[in-house]
Amino acid sequence: MEENKFYTVRGYQLMDQQRNGLTPSLEDYLEMIYRNILSAGYVRVNMLAQELNVKPSSVSKMIMKLAEQGYIDYEKYGVIKLTKRGQEMGKYLLWRHNVINRFFSLLSSMNQENFEEVELVEHILGQETVRSIERLLGILQSEPKVLEKIKNLE
Amino acid sequence: MEENKFYTVRGYQLMDQQRNGLTPSLEDYLEMIYRNILSAGYVRVNMLAQELNVKPSSVSKMIMKLAEQGYIDYEKYGVIKLTKRGQEMGKYLLWRHNVINRFFSLLSSMNQENFEEVELVEHILGQETVRSIERLLGILQSEPKVLEKIKNLE
Repeated sequence: MEENKFYTVRGYQLMDQQRNGLTPSLEDYLEMIYRNILSAGYVRVNMLAQELNVKPSSVSKMIMKLAEQGYIDYEKYGVIKLTKRGQEMGKYLLWRHNVINRFFSLLSSMNQENFEEVELVEHILGQETVRSIERLLGILQSEPKVLEKIKNLE
Repeated sequence: MEENKFYTVRGYQLMDQQRNGLTPSLEDYLEMIYRNILSAGYVRVNMLAQELNVKPSSVSKMIMKLAEQGYIDYEKYGVIKLTKRGQEMGKYLLWRHNVINRFFSLLSSMNQENFEEVELVEHILGQETVRSIERLLGILQSEPKVLEKIKNLE
């Protein structure tokens, strides 16, 4: 199969974006908004700007794009609220991030390189694959001897 | 750790490219050249153009870039030869592709979505991670009962 069909990398990325209309950057913003709302109950443009080390105007631009696509309600005083669609997608994005993070943590002790890989890989994998990885982790969790072998790899 | 440091996706991609000076597209070309030379003993610009369904002039442009970086020798009559550096990198890229392909095959029966994921993910993962995945596959291979569980997931 692997020799039958080739696309350019860019082509795949475009196909991937069609799934939810979000670029990797917009996915990161939505994930971070969801994470902040979970932990602090709310989030403001200024908080995101500080966390991402970018200008508030850059955050505002991304927020507008997320609002256009129906993921967030942008209210007065810079308070960002998630729509129902935004809550669902944010929950999905955070779940996806955590599963992939757990998988990479299993492979080796986390370091800056792994961390970068998680951040890049999460935007690529489809829901079915993330589910499969989650199930794989579940099976390994119930096999202490195998898990021990894997963790002692290095 | 995951909340301490954030870069943009583009930033990570740029860092990744600094590893070997190759963009994902150039990696794909080099992998395909290596694959063709392994199976047919040689490869020409026209063969690659046909395989990738692009114009020979597009292939030539990529070939020039690979030559500039010391990966290939471009000879008369469109024959492409790998330098020693090119052989090593081609071998690495094909190994990386095959490991990731085996991992995704384990997760589920391969379909078009998995195949796209392999093509995207291979450009992101560092050598250490690919090695870890290869070792994980080796361990699972020696655990028939666990492997059976994993394969019966769906």
